[in-house]
Amino acid sequence: MKAPALKRYLPFTDWLFHYKRENLSGDILAGVIVTIMLIPQSLAYAMLAGLPPEYGLYASIVPLFVYGLLGTSRTLSVGPVAVVSLLTATALTPFATPGSEQYIKLAMLLAAMTGVIQLALGLIRGGFVASLLSHPVVAGFITGSSVLILVSQLKHILGVKAAGGHLPYEAVISLVQAAPGTNFVTLAMGVGAIALLLFFRKPFRKLLQRFGLSANAAQMIARTGPALLVLAGMGAVAFFSLDNAYGVRVVGDFPTGLPGLTLPSLDLPVIGSLAPAALAIVLAGYVESVSVGRSLGAKRRQTIDPNQELVALGAANVASGFTGGFPVTGGFSRSVVNFDAGANTGLASMLTAVLIAVVTLALAPMFASLPQVVLAATVIVAVGGLINFRELLRLWKYSKADGALMGLTIVTVLGLGVEIGIGVGVGASLLLYLARSSRPHMAVVGRVGHSEHFRNVKRHEVQTYPGLLLLRVDENLFFANTRNIEDRLLKQVSEQPEIKNIVLIFSAVNYVDASALESLEGVIEKLRALGVTLHLAEVKGPVMDRFDKVGLIEHLKPGQVFLSTHRAVTALQGENPPSRSAKAA
Amino acid sequence: MKAPALKRYLPFTDWLFHYKRENLSGDILAGVIVTIMLIPQSLAYAMLAGLPPEYGLYASIVPLFVYGLLGTSRTLSVGPVAVVSLLTATALTPFATPGSEQYIKLAMLLAAMTGVIQLALGLIRGGFVASLLSHPVVAGFITGSSVLILVSQLKHILGVKAAGGHLPYEAVISLVQAAPGTNFVTLAMGVGAIALLLFFRKPFRKLLQRFGLSANAAQMIARTGPALLVLAGMGAVAFFSLDNAYGVRVVGDFPTGLPGLTLPSLDLPVIGSLAPAALAIVLAGYVESVSVGRSLGAKRRQTIDPNQELVALGAANVASGFTGGFPVTGGFSRSVVNFDAGANTGLASMLTAVLIAVVTLALAPMFASLPQVVLAATVIVAVGGLINFRELLRLWKYSKADGALMGLTIVTVLGLGVEIGIGVGVGASLLLYLARSSRPHMAVVGRVGHSEHFRNVKRHEVQTYPGLLLLRVDENLFFANTRNIEDRLLKQVSEQPEIKNIVLIFSAVNYVDASALESLEGVIEKLRALGVTLHLAEVKGPVMDRFDKVGLIEHLKPGQVFLSTHRAVTALQGENPPSRSAKAA
Repeated sequence: MKAPALKRYLPFTDWLFHYKRENLSGDILAGVIVTIMLIPQSLAYAMLAGLPPEYGLYASIVPLFVYGLLGTSRTLSVGPVAVVSLLTATALTPFATPGSEQYIKLAMLLAAMTGVIQLALGLIRGGFVASLLSHPVVAGFITGSSVLILVSQLKHILGVKAAGGHLPYEAVISLVQAAPGTNFVTLAMGVGAIALLLFFRKPFRKLLQRFGLSANAAQMIARTGPALLVLAGMGAVAFFSLDNAYGVRVVGDFPTGLPGLTLPSLDLPVIGSLAPAALAIVLAGYVESVSVGRSLGAKRRQTIDPNQELVALGAANVASGFTGGFPVTGGFSRSVVNFDAGANTGLASMLTAVLIAVVTLALAPMFASLPQVVLAATVIVAVGGLINFRELLRLWKYSKADGALMGLTIVTVLGLGVEIGIGVGVGASLLLYLARSSRPHMAVVGRVGHSEHFRNVKRHEVQTYPGLLLLRVDENLFFANTRNIEDRLLKQVSEQPEIKNIVLIFSAVNYVDASALESLEGVIEKLRALGVTLHLAEVKGPVMDRFDKVGLIEHLKPGQVFLSTHRAVTALQGENPPSRSAKAA
Repeated sequence: MKAPALKRYLPFTDWLFHYKRENLSGDILAGVIVTIMLIPQSLAYAMLAGLPPEYGLYASIVPLFVYGLLGTSRTLSVGPVAVVSLLTATALTPFATPGSEQYIKLAMLLAAMTGVIQLALGLIRGGFVASLLSHPVVAGFITGSSVLILVSQLKHILGVKAAGGHLPYEAVISLVQAAPGTNFVTLAMGVGAIALLLFFRKPFRKLLQRFGLSANAAQMIARTGPALLVLAGMGAVAFFSLDNAYGVRVVGDFPTGLPGLTLPSLDLPVIGSLAPAALAIVLAGYVESVSVGRSLGAKRRQTIDPNQELVALGAANVASGFTGGFPVTGGFSRSVVNFDAGANTGLASMLTAVLIAVVTLALAPMFASLPQVVLAATVIVAVGGLINFRELLRLWKYSKADGALMGLTIVTVLGLGVEIGIGVGVGASLLLYLARSSRPHMAVVGRVGHSEHFRNVKRHEVQTYPGLLLLRVDENLFFANTRNIEDRLLKQVSEQPEIKNIVLIFSAVNYVDASALESLEGVIEKLRALGVTLHLAEVKGPVMDRFDKVGLIEHLKPGQVFLSTHRAVTALQGENPPSRSAKAA
């Protein structure tokens, strides 16, 4: 069931041209609420990414508009998110000083690179790459990087300048060294802001409900909390001159106007060096985004197209790269808010984009007095909720291997950084899976009574035949398991010299790759040298077609291909003495 | 059936202490023949590896002895081989000038590193890593690197000095630039040597047979060809003063005596930089060795233990690193010769080791006049037989994906070098496999007649039930396919709003990893929000045990776990109106 091309590649054609009036109020409300929530978040995540805060707003205009048009999720809210901002900072810091002009250019380049990779992957329908990130790796990565983010913000809470460093532990050391210079006014504001934000998160909502507000209304109001805090912070700085009198750090210069269309710099060696980071952002950003989109879609029986999502996110990132932004993706918390507030179509995202543009133009002068510590508090509360060490225990209980994988990812992220962490996690998942599938299930089978059924000799009372080995392979044959199958087959033969014929039963084999073909050809030869003939049974059509193409059936002779195990036994029993009844040898 | 620990870890205890007299003549003959063959090869491969030729002999003494004691293959002949020598040269050239003292030290370090990795992998029974190298990647790697080796030797055939370069194409350019300086005496010797070696390979053997020799005897004699050529070359140089009169390059200084016990240098940053090369050598060397060992073993109904093979090769490489050698592995052609000459136990290898030591001591003065061009001819003829572009066509015919994989590996090896080539090949195999397994087979099933059997609705005339979806998953659930399953399940539900109950049939599911568990939990929630209940049927014991540990069964409620699909339908049919007969929707 393929969607028509137009609807598939330009999803907005499905809702924009025959927009339903009844969707409008939900879209407007959601657009407004998300804007209120996005302002402090975008400023804070820009700071986390090492950019001047205004770039957070820039990254929340055109990319949102583009995603609104091209995304298949009706409710996903795209923009700066914590983990991707951290990856951005990690990637760029070795090449330029955070906040510098060169750094900003590289951020735009990184966004454009991320976008191009996502677009390309989406167009070749490569959405499956998201499956490279297994759940333990994602969980470990999120917990590990949230801890890193939290640590990175502590310097703003203490009001000190700490240089950080290339590796995570260096950030901790420089923080400890700088701690004696703590600005206590800043610290008090930071602790207060965190407390307020936590209060807004749940107690305030419950309080409102106790005053008679509906759960939904209470939640909407509670969500304006961070924005109110930003306003209060700016007001306090302006009113008490906290910046000049007490040394509280503020955002400072905040340009008015919107960014123009800019070309990211095309510096080839730099592109090469940023490639691993771009890949990590593609993976991490896409996985977060798609899983949120899928969850929210399911609640309304809407499905998303993972490949078109890559295209939409790719286009959003390219747009971000050309309009003064940095890498963006679909954020978890904002998307939930968007959904709860009643977003029905991409129009909600597009409205948010317009509102952010208006805010950027109208409120720019005020943002100059925004205290950094308030932004840091916003980041800390946002990522604090993502740290989840309980999941480590749960996974360990479920499966030691999966638990160890999550633990390894956390440790690597904390010890060696986010990019290496994601790389090691993906590598370890693949090795673990390969180790698991390198020992496929195989069963020696025998005849059940006088029936035409054949079952595992270890589990059933079945009849076997001397000199005839019936071996059922229960998995597809491919490079990771083919050597193991070969070894086990040859071992059987070396242990039972009486075997003259072997029938491999392919009832569960849907695919035989070239490595397995090679192995099969080798096995035929090796067995022939020992006077043993290999036969096949129950080979499926597509597998047989491929065998035909390379003449395997010819090569098998005098071995034959039998339609069923029963026929194989009937045909080969003539060569073997009459049967005896047996159980597992 | 586990072998006793002693026999498993020290295989020689199985044959040395009760050595059978009847094995002796075969072992002696094989030891002598392999020695004759190994002398020119080891000198030539040392030159290919960028080392003075005597190091080839050093690498053919203690490592062979160690492998003879620890290897599980009775006939594998360990020592320098072409591909590993090329990998060694590629790895070391950026760090030191070939032939320099520093270069030799690094070669020993690389051997020791390779050995340590192999030992470690073997001891943790990690032999499955060999399955990382699929057949198309190995085939592409061998063909690509053989072309590289061939090109690298042409400068010796022309008798010119060509610098080569970091990338393969640079070697070609510098060769073309140096070509005008060709030494025609050297070129004539090179062409002659290649022609003679090709003549020894087959025509000479047939000629001997025509003169009445047995096929076996003819083969043995033909195999002394390369050694005779070496003798002839040395004689010609000495007799005609080819080196001084005609500028034919010779080996030159050739130290007498054997290498002492030396410690490889422990330079940590260098170790880090050499690690990828060591990994590539571990993989490439191990795969070649194990597949030869397995093939030869099978001919005599002997099996090899892949993990103990890693231990034995690891010990041989560590020994090589401490006795002036470079990375070694089991070679294809020599092992076949060893087998054909009648090697019965590791004693043949140990005898070869002793003989090589004797030759090194006795003939050292002669080797100084050995012309390099003869060694280059030896290498060219050896690798020429490994170039196999026909396999590319065959694989392409069998499966476009596998063919493309081999092509990609060849192109990467030729364009970017052996290490990157092997890395790209392994990465592409894994991605290809992941892409393949990310779309698992699933079937909507229905009841066959009034039986208790359920079959695919697309293939059989079966009965389905409105409001009840029976879905059989035909593969293990793991991180690569779990998202696809979730998407397809939710799509069914969004397309058929009448569905109230879904039964997932796990008859083919042997393993559910943590990612799939996570997805399953999510699906339960998502379906619940839509008023659909998820049930499971035919869950296998080990899978059920894990589910119990994390409370999934509780989480499933009111969904249930049914022993069979039949029971599920019987229980749930009450909630659904009576059945109707249907074929594929």
